Amino acid sequence: MEKNISEIEKEFLEYVKKMGAYNEALGLIYWDLRTGAPREGHVQRSEVIGVLQSEVFKMSVSDEMEAYIEKLSGNVPGSVTNKVLEECKKNFERNRKIPESLFREYVVLQARAESIWEEAKKASDFEMFRPYLEKLVAIQKQFIEYWGYTGNPYNSLLDMYEPGITVEVLDDVFAKLRDKIVPLVSEIAKSGKKPETGFLFHHFPKESQREFSLEALKQIGYNFNAGRLDETVHPFATGLNPGDVRVTTNYDENDFRTAVFGTIHEGGHALYEQNISKELIGTPLCSGTSMGIHESQSLFYENFVGRSLGFWKNNLDLLKKYADGQFDGISIEDFYRAINESKPSYIRIEADELTYPLHIIIRYEIEKGLFNNEIEVKELPEVWNRKYEQYLGIRPRNDAEGVLQDVHWSGGSFGYFPSYALGYMYAAQFMNTLKKEMPEYARLLETGEYLPIKEWFTKHVHFFGKMKKPLEILVDATGEGLNPDYLIEYLYEKYSGVYCLNID
Amino acid sequence: MEKNISEIEKEFLEYVKKMGAYNEALGLIYWDLRTGAPREGHVQRSEVIGVLQSEVFKMSVSDEMEAYIEKLSGNVPGSVTNKVLEECKKNFERNRKIPESLFREYVVLQARAESIWEEAKKASDFEMFRPYLEKLVAIQKQFIEYWGYTGNPYNSLLDMYEPGITVEVLDDVFAKLRDKIVPLVSEIAKSGKKPETGFLFHHFPKESQREFSLEALKQIGYNFNAGRLDETVHPFATGLNPGDVRVTTNYDENDFRTAVFGTIHEGGHALYEQNISKELIGTPLCSGTSMGIHESQSLFYENFVGRSLGFWKNNLDLLKKYADGQFDGISIEDFYRAINESKPSYIRIEADELTYPLHIIIRYEIEKGLFNNEIEVKELPEVWNRKYEQYLGIRPRNDAEGVLQDVHWSGGSFGYFPSYALGYMYAAQFMNTLKKEMPEYARLLETGEYLPIKEWFTKHVHFFGKMKKPLEILVDATGEGLNPDYLIEYLYEKYSGVYCLNID
Repeated sequence: MEKNISEIEKEFLEYVKKMGAYNEALGLIYWDLRTGAPREGHVQRSEVIGVLQSEVFKMSVSDEMEAYIEKLSGNVPGSVTNKVLEECKKNFERNRKIPESLFREYVVLQARAESIWEEAKKASDFEMFRPYLEKLVAIQKQFIEYWGYTGNPYNSLLDMYEPGITVEVLDDVFAKLRDKIVPLVSEIAKSGKKPETGFLFHHFPKESQREFSLEALKQIGYNFNAGRLDETVHPFATGLNPGDVRVTTNYDENDFRTAVFGTIHEGGHALYEQNISKELIGTPLCSGTSMGIHESQSLFYENFVGRSLGFWKNNLDLLKKYADGQFDGISIEDFYRAINESKPSYIRIEADELTYPLHIIIRYEIEKGLFNNEIEVKELPEVWNRKYEQYLGIRPRNDAEGVLQDVHWSGGSFGYFPSYALGYMYAAQFMNTLKKEMPEYARLLETGEYLPIKEWFTKHVHFFGKMKKPLEILVDATGEGLNPDYLIEYLYEKYSGVYCLNID
Repeated sequence: MEKNISEIEKEFLEYVKKMGAYNEALGLIYWDLRTGAPREGHVQRSEVIGVLQSEVFKMSVSDEMEAYIEKLSGNVPGSVTNKVLEECKKNFERNRKIPESLFREYVVLQARAESIWEEAKKASDFEMFRPYLEKLVAIQKQFIEYWGYTGNPYNSLLDMYEPGITVEVLDDVFAKLRDKIVPLVSEIAKSGKKPETGFLFHHFPKESQREFSLEALKQIGYNFNAGRLDETVHPFATGLNPGDVRVTTNYDENDFRTAVFGTIHEGGHALYEQNISKELIGTPLCSGTSMGIHESQSLFYENFVGRSLGFWKNNLDLLKKYADGQFDGISIEDFYRAINESKPSYIRIEADELTYPLHIIIRYEIEKGLFNNEIEVKELPEVWNRKYEQYLGIRPRNDAEGVLQDVHWSGGSFGYFPSYALGYMYAAQFMNTLKKEMPEYARLLETGEYLPIKEWFTKHVHFFGKMKKPLEILVDATGEGLNPDYLIEYLYEKYSGVYCLNID
């Protein structure tokens, strides 16, 4: 007897629930590996990861999955099931279009390239890494042909991380950003002004940094019954399910900013995952909708809250309480200027708010060039250094602080970098609307009442998980499409304040 | 084209490796749940457990598994594959013989019974729990009929936890134990002697207890590159793989013995799992061979090492260093007598070394009676209390401190209790051989050189995983079958020393 549609739908939802369960187990395994799993167990744990991952992959491209998509698409009433189908179909098509032998070659190459990249970075020698990167780019170009694309081939990669965002959009917004940020950066350099920052770098015991970080997480509305804070080397947040969203941080005892701003950043990611609608649990929709929207949440809290004057008006005394006297006698204004010093630097992840977008734009321009056959891999060190000189006024002295600094390309992650800058623009655009809808916004920052802010984001962003695409979220929340002006305005206002510049 | 045997063998080993991977993921999930997983994520985490467990179960009884067993049994050369087949066949037959509907009924009942037991224990009301226990026993009796048995029906249950051990064996050894321990217990009571114990119960900060516990683990040879110590409510050790064997403990700040002896106990389990042959990783043979042999390792370290005079000659000063002065002026002899006080008590898990076996024997006699239709569930409180009075000279005042104290029956674990006493007898028998083969044993205890002891156990016990059955291990290591005399001798010697009795 033929099964009816609602029986098939039920089976399909069980099927994706199983994939979700494997992914949740994988999430816990990764968290554990990065927060203290005993070293000698790692090799066998990798086997476990391999088994679970390949099971999820097989399920995503199976004939069963194909049959569910065919039978159910357009035939079920529920909006959740339809979105789940859409999501599964996208993955199915992406993964099925690649010939298995090419995919296997790629997976082996990825693993090898990452360890070669590590060595090359240590030796600061791009030539070591070059042949692997060439092969990675070549295979990605083949993937793009299999996947197909509209407009620019690079769009096919962007679509993976930020559906709806294309070269056509990015060329425009990144040009605007670049043309406004570059002069501001050079204006600051010309002013010769430099905030006093020496007091930042005193010894601040790890345990006390942790105490303050916990307080900061609590303030922004992180739910400790649905999460925990642990220590790791490379900080991250991970949403295993909305009731279990973990934050990690690392501590530099001679620079408290690493842990404090790092924790608030990851806390922003965590607020997103903690507040997704419970209705989506067990489906692939139960996570942030895109890298960019995710980053909008972390950057909003890290920069717009954590690096704001208001936040520190409310928290500097608390920080002083935990510190060993390093901030005694430091005024709130001096503290604010110190933590917001802007100066061109080589390393993206150490960049300040103002110069950060330029790091991203450089990578975007290079990736676009690569996938449009306008730049060859062998030219990368030279192109990289030239762009740093042009946009930031500094020229990396070697490959380690230049083209080899980031892990992304070694793992084949092309098209990912733009999300960081997109997130920043989304965040500024959200803030603009938030301030309009919440006239007491500035006061809330100073009094530490951050919950209404979290609630606004939950209502407009968090709740939907992957039920809405990134631009849908943005337009529904702010009433317009991506507009870089809000970020530009914010940066001009903030940095002319920090550096007492007269710019209009 | 037909696959040849070695291809099928390879496939089969991949198949069991996959089951092992799911089990390892489950192990990590359980560890995490019991050491700090955020509360609000538990419900969804249970779903993940359900998915993984049902997958492992399905794989263990699948037609594929059946085909592997049929095609490979007796047709492969390797001793490992043959043992894996044997293990899989045993599970397959156990699980396939039960009708699915009965098994489902049982699983639902188990979950329900456990929460009812919790309530019943709180209310100290056996009648609340009785109907569930009756049903559990009734279904287990049906299982026994499906599984079949030799000799006594209760053997079918014993075989799950301690293959090779039967009612015929236990009746004999437990009678000997009981007939020797009961008079010794009453001798001690009659002597009227009671060691001074007041100094044990001072405030000992948790952090310091942890430091001492870590030192103790290190001394016995626990490898911290392949493990870690965490806090939990109900302590356990878990071997995810030999490179990742975790120990947990809990701290009572007014009784350091809970953490210290608990950690050493779990450390003994952990030494077993850390030292299984690497060759067995990824197979179902990579864990302790039975509950009883496992318990022999934990009890050996907890009692024969941790509660010995030698261990404290070497460690009392260290304990004094961590404690807040509570042991100042206490002699090693007084300390030793205090931690080895013996007195009849109601609660098994709080019992001392001497009375502990009686708690087990009572449960054994009751279980045997239940499954031989000589005792009815409704009679349990009365039977229980009568036996406590008869063997220990005390009568529980209510069900909570009597028949309802242990969780085991609520989960349907009948046949499990005897392992605890078996482990104790195995341990004493191992020690007897160890002392003969290592004449310096007593000196090693006093000087803290415990590694040769660990190495002896690794060579004779740990290394084999499930490659050998429990009695095979015992006979190969000690040259004889189970002999309760060694435990009896040990107890007489120890307790006539602690209580200065003149017994021969």
